[in-house]
Amino acid sequence: MADQPAQPAEHATSASAMRRGPRGGAEDVKAAIFAAARACFARDGYQATTIKAIAAKAGVDTKLVHYYFGTKQALFGTLISQVFTDFGLLQDLFIAARSGRPGGAIYVRQILTLLDTTPEGQVFIGLIRSVGTHAESEQIMLAFVADVLERIVGPQVTPEVEFRSSLVGSQMLGLVFTRYILKNPVMMEASIDDLAEAVGPTLDRYLSAALGLPD
Amino acid sequence: MADQPAQPAEHATSASAMRRGPRGGAEDVKAAIFAAARACFARDGYQATTIKAIAAKAGVDTKLVHYYFGTKQALFGTLISQVFTDFGLLQDLFIAARSGRPGGAIYVRQILTLLDTTPEGQVFIGLIRSVGTHAESEQIMLAFVADVLERIVGPQVTPEVEFRSSLVGSQMLGLVFTRYILKNPVMMEASIDDLAEAVGPTLDRYLSAALGLPD
Repeated sequence: MADQPAQPAEHATSASAMRRGPRGGAEDVKAAIFAAARACFARDGYQATTIKAIAAKAGVDTKLVHYYFGTKQALFGTLISQVFTDFGLLQDLFIAARSGRPGGAIYVRQILTLLDTTPEGQVFIGLIRSVGTHAESEQIMLAFVADVLERIVGPQVTPEVEFRSSLVGSQMLGLVFTRYILKNPVMMEASIDDLAEAVGPTLDRYLSAALGLPD
Repeated sequence: MADQPAQPAEHATSASAMRRGPRGGAEDVKAAIFAAARACFARDGYQATTIKAIAAKAGVDTKLVHYYFGTKQALFGTLISQVFTDFGLLQDLFIAARSGRPGGAIYVRQILTLLDTTPEGQVFIGLIRSVGTHAESEQIMLAFVADVLERIVGPQVTPEVEFRSSLVGSQMLGLVFTRYILKNPVMMEASIDDLAEAVGPTLDRYLSAALGLPD
């Protein structure tokens, strides 16, 4: 019941929208919209994707997309956080760090494999590409970082965890940037294994070593 | 004499251009153009700066700017490589690595101070900002990386040195990106000292540790 529309009055009148939605309850409708959004963003990138195109692909009215997910920016933010946490990547890295095991190399391997082989990978690269010159992309990226961290760590993110994970983020962003956007030949041609071996211990150190922490 | 124009015939006829140049030899003219370019790029950024504006500031004909430095892209590339090597930053890091001393923290401190406090720092940040969406900036950045490496290491840059320095570049680029472009609050608010302590050992390891090297 928690996933039922919170303001049914507005949408009870939008019977045509509900009729145009897939059969089933709110969860099915949301899942259909989410799958459509994932496909559209992966195919067309953030800027070229419209709510109208997502609604058409999901076979629902655009109002339903807005109703469940808000603006395009909010939908996209929800989607990339969800994809990222679905893959379980950062969780494993944090768990490894907590138990004193090195998890960095596995993490680098998983991220680069995601970027090299999945449509969502292209969406992430497109997002990073736009951050420097597109204020909305910058906002999405910042919200994404904060959202993923909260999903994994919980609402009580300490300044220490924020600093350590920002250091991890800085290295991963730089790695992705040099390999996929700047297209530095050495970084493009290096194998995922070589990069994972080289960069993994950096992440382990950022998460576990004694560091001077900001006040 | 090596710095005399290599094709004097073309420019001997451009007497008006020479008259409009500052007094003194080719070196003085080049230095005046270079100082003007530095000031213009620092004030207006790469994309808004024109050869005409640089020539006007240097008090010379635009033809002389093209004659000595080629296109705007080439002039800008020469300038940022020169600024970077003038500061002596990467050289010191390489020298430290060769003699087994940690140089990473000093390097991070110097780069962040350069970016925080000098007009040239703003030009670098502007360049990195544009790389993702402006093909010319991408080319400039790639040429800059290769040029700086060759200035420091000499023409015989081995694949190992390229890989190690690309790893250093990936971390530094990511650090600059998260602090100045994405404006991650934690990275913006962290002191230069905290960042230098945290990131410095990463650079030392990339330059000196045993790494799996690409074939």
